[in-house]
Amino acid sequence: VHRQHLVELQAKLDELHPADVAHLLEALPLEDRLMVWQLVKAERDGDILLEVSDAVRETLIADMDDQELLAAAREMDADALADLAAELPRDMVHELMEGLDAQQRERLRSALSYEEDQVGALMDFAMVTIREDVSLEVVLRYLRRLKELPGHTDKLFVVDYDGVLKGVLPIKRLLVSDPDKTVAQIMAIDPVLFHPDEDAYEAAQAFERYNLVSAPVVDKNGKLIGRLTIDEIVDLIREESESEVLNMAGLREEEDIFASVWKSVRNRWFWLAVNLMTAFVASRVIGLFDDTISELVALAALMPIVAGIGGNSGNQTITMIVRAMALDQLTTGKGNTLRLLRKELSVALINGLVWGGVIGVVAAVLYDSLGLGLVMVSAMTLNLLLAALMGVLIPMTLARLGRDPAMGASVMITAVTDSGGFFIFLGLASLCLM
Amino acid sequence: VHRQHLVELQAKLDELHPADVAHLLEALPLEDRLMVWQLVKAERDGDILLEVSDAVRETLIADMDDQELLAAAREMDADALADLAAELPRDMVHELMEGLDAQQRERLRSALSYEEDQVGALMDFAMVTIREDVSLEVVLRYLRRLKELPGHTDKLFVVDYDGVLKGVLPIKRLLVSDPDKTVAQIMAIDPVLFHPDEDAYEAAQAFERYNLVSAPVVDKNGKLIGRLTIDEIVDLIREESESEVLNMAGLREEEDIFASVWKSVRNRWFWLAVNLMTAFVASRVIGLFDDTISELVALAALMPIVAGIGGNSGNQTITMIVRAMALDQLTTGKGNTLRLLRKELSVALINGLVWGGVIGVVAAVLYDSLGLGLVMVSAMTLNLLLAALMGVLIPMTLARLGRDPAMGASVMITAVTDSGGFFIFLGLASLCLM
Repeated sequence: VHRQHLVELQAKLDELHPADVAHLLEALPLEDRLMVWQLVKAERDGDILLEVSDAVRETLIADMDDQELLAAAREMDADALADLAAELPRDMVHELMEGLDAQQRERLRSALSYEEDQVGALMDFAMVTIREDVSLEVVLRYLRRLKELPGHTDKLFVVDYDGVLKGVLPIKRLLVSDPDKTVAQIMAIDPVLFHPDEDAYEAAQAFERYNLVSAPVVDKNGKLIGRLTIDEIVDLIREESESEVLNMAGLREEEDIFASVWKSVRNRWFWLAVNLMTAFVASRVIGLFDDTISELVALAALMPIVAGIGGNSGNQTITMIVRAMALDQLTTGKGNTLRLLRKELSVALINGLVWGGVIGVVAAVLYDSLGLGLVMVSAMTLNLLLAALMGVLIPMTLARLGRDPAMGASVMITAVTDSGGFFIFLGLASLCLM
Repeated sequence: VHRQHLVELQAKLDELHPADVAHLLEALPLEDRLMVWQLVKAERDGDILLEVSDAVRETLIADMDDQELLAAAREMDADALADLAAELPRDMVHELMEGLDAQQRERLRSALSYEEDQVGALMDFAMVTIREDVSLEVVLRYLRRLKELPGHTDKLFVVDYDGVLKGVLPIKRLLVSDPDKTVAQIMAIDPVLFHPDEDAYEAAQAFERYNLVSAPVVDKNGKLIGRLTIDEIVDLIREESESEVLNMAGLREEEDIFASVWKSVRNRWFWLAVNLMTAFVASRVIGLFDDTISELVALAALMPIVAGIGGNSGNQTITMIVRAMALDQLTTGKGNTLRLLRKELSVALINGLVWGGVIGVVAAVLYDSLGLGLVMVSAMTLNLLLAALMGVLIPMTLARLGRDPAMGASVMITAVTDSGGFFIFLGLASLCLM
């Protein structure tokens, strides 16, 4: 009976699109995932490996022997191999390279030479090139001879004899123009184009801004070397936003939801350790005021409120600013920094007086002490001002130093507002209430 | 001289793509933004309004009088008007509707009838339809007569006399096939299609999974009523990830970075108020242990460490799970919940024993008390277990109740780990050390 089920499952898998099989594999716990993986027809292995996330791909590759892996990788072109190469054994990459023709090998080598976040790592080589002096009629006949066009072909690339890009011919112009015209007459001569060492995130913004489907990539001499397509850009945008969310929560990288306990521990320990250290510093700050607290134990109960609201408010500010920077809406110029500081400090002042006022009244009534209430209002306002100040300065400074303004920003701001909040509150209390 | 500068600036603005002008406006403080906006030629107003973010669009519309606004909106088709309608005065929308022909009016009315997150609100109406019984030669001639094709036309829609979708003809097949063949012979009869009341985020996943550029939208009788294009989907993916980041930081909606102080206060007060309430609850929990703290003031210094690391770890868990749910990789079935609970509790146990152990040793040495060290280890482990438990149960429960699992998840988990952490730590200390 079990065998019968497997046969049925296999038949169903064969009907699914590789992307759907990939999605199914993502959503299965490890043992079930490997069971399904075994049922997938070997010739589809390659397509599916290219669709799954890095975390899941690792588990699938670990389950394949060298023969299977080699068979799957042999089907791939240079562009696909480049995506996979990081996870294959080094020897195998060499062996695969030798199996490629000279052009494909050169392309693979070049794709592997770029960083993950550069245009060169995202480009593919499936371009249709034409010459500018032929008529559209000739172009149409040429396309018909190709039998198949690469996916996302919304424009043809016009190059000269040396392969230098002269312009692009959008398919939609090709279709509506008089076939007797030449390519040169209707091509766009000033297309959006990219260089392989450009930042991929900036390319993604250009794709969004100009609603591109594909775009040429040229080297520094203007020679066409590849193209970018919207499907890669969509994946990049998705990954970018995910890594932002993950970074903020203190996860180092994408984690397969059904990963083993040890893998999860390894992925998460770093930010927990950082958090532990900053919490320890905050604890030592409190330790400075032991005497004050033992005289007025209410302070111990109230201090987390001051620290907590500072952290929340600081995170609001820093999120806003990191986001504006990611969207390229904010430069690190002095004028902008001052203007933002003025605004954020004003918001903090209002929030501090209003919410500090509310909680100050509550504290004054609860502990029957006007002084305590006043210390509470002052401390909350000061800590919110500190949160606003650091919420602007931390990402601005990181960016000016050429670092990612999101990385660890949330942990840093919380560390400042915790230690700062405890110090301000307990310090004011020692000065005013003792 | 100033006048001279303005003329130059205007000339430069005229050369820019509307999307670039929009980007410039986003990056300018309010007064500069409105100055530039005045310089933009009136006939480009509409295009630019459609490109800017909601927050910035509001500031621009507030600066226009009714005449200008009407002139800009009159240029738009139903699809564009639908995007703008929410921000226009009600009377004006009526007036604009009367200026449209019957078909456009019907389309606008239908687009406005869908929720923001439904396919119907994202679709446009720029479709090229053909019949299945004609030859490709005829199709090519028909396209040539159109003079221009809508953007993102990678396929033509094949419909019958009643407008029912029969299939799609990908342009890349049209270009490589024999012109004597008929549409019916080469069209794809089983295309990915959407219904107007479907969830837009699911449509976005389908676009990503099948690398679509455009797709038909049909009503329940199979009649073609519009199409989705990748540019709208890219905007949606960007917005989705932004709102996830903003929600987590306690910002209610997109905030223009140069918004006025009052607007920022209004946008941020809600989550600050929620945070204040949960912090107050945590404060009352500490208040329960006043006597214990006044006997052993070291507890006041150590308790934020226990609460803080619980919050950090709980946020890691909840982020993982919310993300897997957003990507549709996790169902709320009982098997999955139990499996995840087992994994997350194991991770928490290891982290608690390791990091709790480290900080326990430090505390024992620092305060010269083995008992205090042991209480620290136990409290940290228990609070991490609590964080893992709630980190799994909160989003799973929200999802089962049909709510957004991300909304407020971070505030909730922090509330639990704060109050819970203080209670566990101070409770254990009262029991064991007093």
